[in-house]
Amino acid sequence: MADLFERLVKNYGPLGQHRERAHGYFAFPKLEGEIGSRMKFRGKDVIVWSLNNYLGLANNPEVRKADAEAAEQYGLATPMGARMMSGNTNFHEQLEKELAEFEGKEDACLLNYGYQGMVSIIDALCSRHDVIVYDAESHACIIDGVRLHPGHRYVFKHNDLEDLEKQLQRATALVEKQNAGGILVITEGVFGMAGDQGKLKEIISLKDKYEFRMLVDDAHGFGTLGKTGAGAGEAQGVQDKIDLYFSTFAKSMASIGAFVAGDKAIIDYIRYNIRSQIFAKSLPLPITIGNLKRLDLLRTRPEFKDKLWENAMKLQNGLKEKGFDIGNTDSPVTPVYMKGGVEEATAMVMDLRENYGIFASVVVYPVIPKGHIIYRLIPTAVHTDQDIEETLKAFEETKKKLDNGDYKVEAIPDMAEYSAKRFEYFGSKPKSSK
Amino acid sequence: MADLFERLVKNYGPLGQHRERAHGYFAFPKLEGEIGSRMKFRGKDVIVWSLNNYLGLANNPEVRKADAEAAEQYGLATPMGARMMSGNTNFHEQLEKELAEFEGKEDACLLNYGYQGMVSIIDALCSRHDVIVYDAESHACIIDGVRLHPGHRYVFKHNDLEDLEKQLQRATALVEKQNAGGILVITEGVFGMAGDQGKLKEIISLKDKYEFRMLVDDAHGFGTLGKTGAGAGEAQGVQDKIDLYFSTFAKSMASIGAFVAGDKAIIDYIRYNIRSQIFAKSLPLPITIGNLKRLDLLRTRPEFKDKLWENAMKLQNGLKEKGFDIGNTDSPVTPVYMKGGVEEATAMVMDLRENYGIFASVVVYPVIPKGHIIYRLIPTAVHTDQDIEETLKAFEETKKKLDNGDYKVEAIPDMAEYSAKRFEYFGSKPKSSK
Repeated sequence: MADLFERLVKNYGPLGQHRERAHGYFAFPKLEGEIGSRMKFRGKDVIVWSLNNYLGLANNPEVRKADAEAAEQYGLATPMGARMMSGNTNFHEQLEKELAEFEGKEDACLLNYGYQGMVSIIDALCSRHDVIVYDAESHACIIDGVRLHPGHRYVFKHNDLEDLEKQLQRATALVEKQNAGGILVITEGVFGMAGDQGKLKEIISLKDKYEFRMLVDDAHGFGTLGKTGAGAGEAQGVQDKIDLYFSTFAKSMASIGAFVAGDKAIIDYIRYNIRSQIFAKSLPLPITIGNLKRLDLLRTRPEFKDKLWENAMKLQNGLKEKGFDIGNTDSPVTPVYMKGGVEEATAMVMDLRENYGIFASVVVYPVIPKGHIIYRLIPTAVHTDQDIEETLKAFEETKKKLDNGDYKVEAIPDMAEYSAKRFEYFGSKPKSSK
Repeated sequence: MADLFERLVKNYGPLGQHRERAHGYFAFPKLEGEIGSRMKFRGKDVIVWSLNNYLGLANNPEVRKADAEAAEQYGLATPMGARMMSGNTNFHEQLEKELAEFEGKEDACLLNYGYQGMVSIIDALCSRHDVIVYDAESHACIIDGVRLHPGHRYVFKHNDLEDLEKQLQRATALVEKQNAGGILVITEGVFGMAGDQGKLKEIISLKDKYEFRMLVDDAHGFGTLGKTGAGAGEAQGVQDKIDLYFSTFAKSMASIGAFVAGDKAIIDYIRYNIRSQIFAKSLPLPITIGNLKRLDLLRTRPEFKDKLWENAMKLQNGLKEKGFDIGNTDSPVTPVYMKGGVEEATAMVMDLRENYGIFASVVVYPVIPKGHIIYRLIPTAVHTDQDIEETLKAFEETKKKLDNGDYKVEAIPDMAEYSAKRFEYFGSKPKSSK
């Protein structure tokens, strides 16, 4: 028989297989210095496009002050238990109240982390006879929640209304046949990779024909979309029709934690049945207080969202003018689609980082199909015109090199040498498999 | 067909069904003031036995200073991404290094939260052909990880070696029949409800007969057990035989986050394949720095652990001397088993809180079988002799009342009146179902 571990180290997986040369550079890179549009990477200044600090709140002086004061006053340990047992405070309840109001919902339930929050919301809501219908490009936390579901689940092609309807018909037929169970549709406000909004309005219009409840993960829309920043539901004029609105605090709020908002009766149900909250520690108090301050700024400083969008438009229009394919984003998330091999992408990213001082995240095979390269740029309110101009210029020049074949394999820097260098930088010994 | 939500509000679940009268008192109570053995509950002083602040680090002056300084220097927002993408720092790596050393392992992987960390470790390690064999009383996060497993799982009776062997035989037969897959045994260092240690030594001795890997969740043993505080593995002399050692920081470290330690090759595998970390934000930097300080104290101040055990022994021996049944705990976790109905338990807990100033968590039906009451006391290094004496006296007196039938239904305070009171206290409107 086989040893469990032996199998693991034979195949380190899609990302892990490149760890020897990728670690510290392409994976687990260290961005140093204050969070902002310019930070240090391996000692060099870079313009950073990899942080979801949309509104620039991470280093907003009021936020920093609130964070520092709350940590000074309370320490980072309190409260010392799960919300339900011994980890509840007035601040947690206050934040829930303000989030519910901000999202136009009756009530909200605070979550200690977005990932496990979403996983357990889905788990709490659905039992054996219920059917989940979800978008194919849903975030990993939604997928893991769906994976916990003991009943049927139907996936619909990303943002494809026709396919969604087909899946709703299947789901409806199933619950009618079972004579039990309901339907939960799960999608996102903004899809984090491509930046396109979920078609919330169109999906909700299907409620006239099909009976279902709708859970929306608006991690990237919360604070960035809609007149007041309430998110993709507000932007599409259907916020009141979203049954459960979820967002993490890890993006525009520049924090951790999350919440889900909806009718009081359902939020109360979640509160008393959500495993990852009942059986894990409450969100630390200073983080809760810091989130109250962030939410306050999000509500009262529309100029941050305006600036974010001004920068997003400059970046996106600039890229389009230069002939780049940025897909169909309708959020600040800015993907840049190119064609090229993994080795070419590797060389291009290094050129961008080392010679142009541009730090952007990139996705290649096997995460996406072979021959494709996707950069993913996240503009924020704290990027400057110069940041954007330098970036556009760098992308224009490196794209020319890519198209000219300058990044072909022979031009790639010696990986062994690079590998040796990274150990100098990071002072760590090479990771090696058995 | 049925509406998903309609079904939910018809049955709020084992805990939720009592929410109308329990909320704010039995569920989601607020302990106010500095974390310690004496806090405020609804404006009254209480001796608190519900916090896993084993070593008293939550309000240790050095910890408080480290927390405050780190939050002041860095804010609570940074780093702003997942470890793998843009959320890595020298401090995160330093903490991993120190944790690995402390646990006598080659490497450690930091986790942003214990719950989702454990869920995804199990998910990362096991694929379809692997078989999980786990203790029946495993924590919810282990259960959820096992629920994600697409292959077979066999549960063994809590700490029952004979049954474990039976399940290992089934598992072995299955992987041999499949000619694929390995076996992962999951148990805990200390079981959080009953306080008994997992029989790690005995389980490990089965490695002579069966081939399996072992993952141990030592949330309650880390920092409290073993000569150096390295946990249940150290206490039982088998730390080097534990393949993967996991602990949260939410107990003895008085923080959030977690880690898993083991052979470098396997930790590296986890690092590159663990969904809840790859797709969610990194542990905030001030919390990481605060954890370095906590780990330092855990290593260098054995007097905290000594004091914890001194208090645990005083409490446990005191209870035993007074005739209480505390089961077979061999950790500071101190359960107190009694017999009585839910209404009696309700009245007894209120008497303890209101008239004796003792705040202890209690578990009743339907979480445990009807007719049973389990108090769960968590002694810490910051409890005083007076705390313990007052508590022993209160338990003695209230137990007498329980046995005399003084808490029978007619003696229960008017719940409507109590309910009205709690809204005065908390200023919130009654939660109501549809």
